[in-house]
Amino acid sequence: MKRLSILGATGSIGQNALDIVRMHPDRFQVTALTAAFNIEGLARLIHEFKPEIVTVMDEDRAFELSRLLKGNHQPEILFGEQGYIEAASYKNSDLVLLAMVGAAGLKPALAAIESKKQVALANKETLVMAGDIVMAKALENGVTLMPVDSEHSAIFQCLQGNRKKDVQKLILTASGGPFRQKPCHEFKDISLEEALHHPTWSMGKKITIDSATLMNKGLEVIEAFHLFRVAPGAIEVVVHPESIVHSMVGFKDGTVMAQLGQPDMKGAISYALSFPERLDLKMAFPDFSRLGALTFEKPDTGKFPSLLFAFEACRQKGTLPAVLNAANETAVSAFLEKRIGFQDIFRLISKTMETHTRIDNPDLSSIIEADSWAREKAESLI
Amino acid sequence: MKRLSILGATGSIGQNALDIVRMHPDRFQVTALTAAFNIEGLARLIHEFKPEIVTVMDEDRAFELSRLLKGNHQPEILFGEQGYIEAASYKNSDLVLLAMVGAAGLKPALAAIESKKQVALANKETLVMAGDIVMAKALENGVTLMPVDSEHSAIFQCLQGNRKKDVQKLILTASGGPFRQKPCHEFKDISLEEALHHPTWSMGKKITIDSATLMNKGLEVIEAFHLFRVAPGAIEVVVHPESIVHSMVGFKDGTVMAQLGQPDMKGAISYALSFPERLDLKMAFPDFSRLGALTFEKPDTGKFPSLLFAFEACRQKGTLPAVLNAANETAVSAFLEKRIGFQDIFRLISKTMETHTRIDNPDLSSIIEADSWAREKAESLI
Repeated sequence: MKRLSILGATGSIGQNALDIVRMHPDRFQVTALTAAFNIEGLARLIHEFKPEIVTVMDEDRAFELSRLLKGNHQPEILFGEQGYIEAASYKNSDLVLLAMVGAAGLKPALAAIESKKQVALANKETLVMAGDIVMAKALENGVTLMPVDSEHSAIFQCLQGNRKKDVQKLILTASGGPFRQKPCHEFKDISLEEALHHPTWSMGKKITIDSATLMNKGLEVIEAFHLFRVAPGAIEVVVHPESIVHSMVGFKDGTVMAQLGQPDMKGAISYALSFPERLDLKMAFPDFSRLGALTFEKPDTGKFPSLLFAFEACRQKGTLPAVLNAANETAVSAFLEKRIGFQDIFRLISKTMETHTRIDNPDLSSIIEADSWAREKAESLI
Repeated sequence: MKRLSILGATGSIGQNALDIVRMHPDRFQVTALTAAFNIEGLARLIHEFKPEIVTVMDEDRAFELSRLLKGNHQPEILFGEQGYIEAASYKNSDLVLLAMVGAAGLKPALAAIESKKQVALANKETLVMAGDIVMAKALENGVTLMPVDSEHSAIFQCLQGNRKKDVQKLILTASGGPFRQKPCHEFKDISLEEALHHPTWSMGKKITIDSATLMNKGLEVIEAFHLFRVAPGAIEVVVHPESIVHSMVGFKDGTVMAQLGQPDMKGAISYALSFPERLDLKMAFPDFSRLGALTFEKPDTGKFPSLLFAFEACRQKGTLPAVLNAANETAVSAFLEKRIGFQDIFRLISKTMETHTRIDNPDLSSIIEADSWAREKAESLI
């Protein structure tokens, strides 16, 4: 019986993880759940899974939750940063699934690592912002970060049974998003509704926009750079519209190992929860003869400069990846609020990165400072 | 330094293996070589690799070889079945590559296993004819059979880091051979020259014809059935004309792991020689964006009944797989000698299998008897 802390329980990854728990009640027990604002959703999950502690964004929401739960199972209710940290290091948890969105996931991630939990990491900002610090902490505490992103999970799976020194290339696949075939001159007319309609993956709003700009792939490049400790030049992005090949690894004997499956994030989540075992997910295999073809093409970095920004951030390191991430979060929020257009996302990120004075080997406070600086800077540019 | 016995050194797999030895002289030393009839080729290899013992088909050829080598490095020269067995169990060898063609590989394979060598198995007839006996012997001696066929090597690689019980399906890919798109009614006009022209793989003659009839894939199904101990129903064949995906494994969480690479048998051979390490082979990765698409289709068992024969042999077991194999060898020889037409290969195999009275759980002598019976039967049908 594995005891789980799920941070970000009401989000898309949290919900999928809880679906897996529902399918395998004999293997998992939920001891801690957190959400930010979706208090009613969280109340329903508390009713169903009976966790021992829960965390919400602030005191008001903690009161609201307590009121909603009256007469039913009442876990200990915490709130705010300290509450998330406690959920991430909760004594009665064996594995912590970090599925909060954005920079807020960083401190809970460090707390989970420091308390030597098994860590399933879905929050990519953690590695993008502070990859060096997080990976050093993981090494120090003997913690393996299990990736939950389907791409990194694929790479992790491809690496099994192989020696690190035989790895030559990581090949991240990208669906190409909804605008893969849209000509560049039509990009200025892209609406929010179009951008929210992803062709293959069903995900949260922020990440869906990131997929449309290919910034999601950019963040994944930085994430892969840290998780698997390869040179930026050893990472390649290939557009694969069918999203069946989740990613690949090239080895020095010319072999490429690939992990394939339906585009359903349950696969990667369940692997992170059950590694090295695999759970029965009642998921059909891709039907190769019916699919007919798996196609591949080079990403168009003219249309999607986000990939160039990400490789640049990988190469320069220091505070630049955090700045890229913060500028992107700010720009995507503004786009979701219809305050800026689609292409303005690229402009805002690029301008913010250009204006930034990089600090090398930053500590956590320098990173958080750079993050705040970039948010203000990007906001001011809007 | 790994010391190698290479049985079938002058054949296509042997030559490729020796190319790998040439690329990595610091890792491998050749202590035993065997050939059947190509005495001049063997003499050149002896000159280059200076093995301690060599084996050829018969006494006449042993004399011929001795004469050719006069004044140069003279290894101990053996001949005949006992000579091959001695090369397969040679005391100064760590790993035995079994790359002889046909049923003659069986006894040397058993000898290598009994002497607890590392065994790299390229001779598929060994498992097809006597899979139960060979696998039981391997288990008893704690020997892992490293597959050298690219398909089985791919499956072996896909299984690394996974639990046997999580495996749900083996997906063998097939190029489809040169007649994949040829309509069935034109099959009667297929010439030997056409059949010897394989679209993607460069191999020996026997296996090239087997690829054209898809019997090669049929034999591989039986081989996979034994090597990986799955039910015949858990093995699927998918036609993949590009020969980039070498084979796949489906797991119960919906994941499919795939091994990809150029269609060059060096990859699988070197993996078998160096497992669990990978050697630098200076081989380019498949260029996915240039390839554009990897395509897949169902095999046409109406055109290629060989696959049905193989699954039937898997299900019935006993002496039937040996009969299938012997009838096929006889038919292919006759086709190579232009004594029969292409489709007669299917007819001969089918008729021979139908006429056979199966023996269950046969011992080695019953298998060899069934093999001889089938050769005579098939020959008589010509």
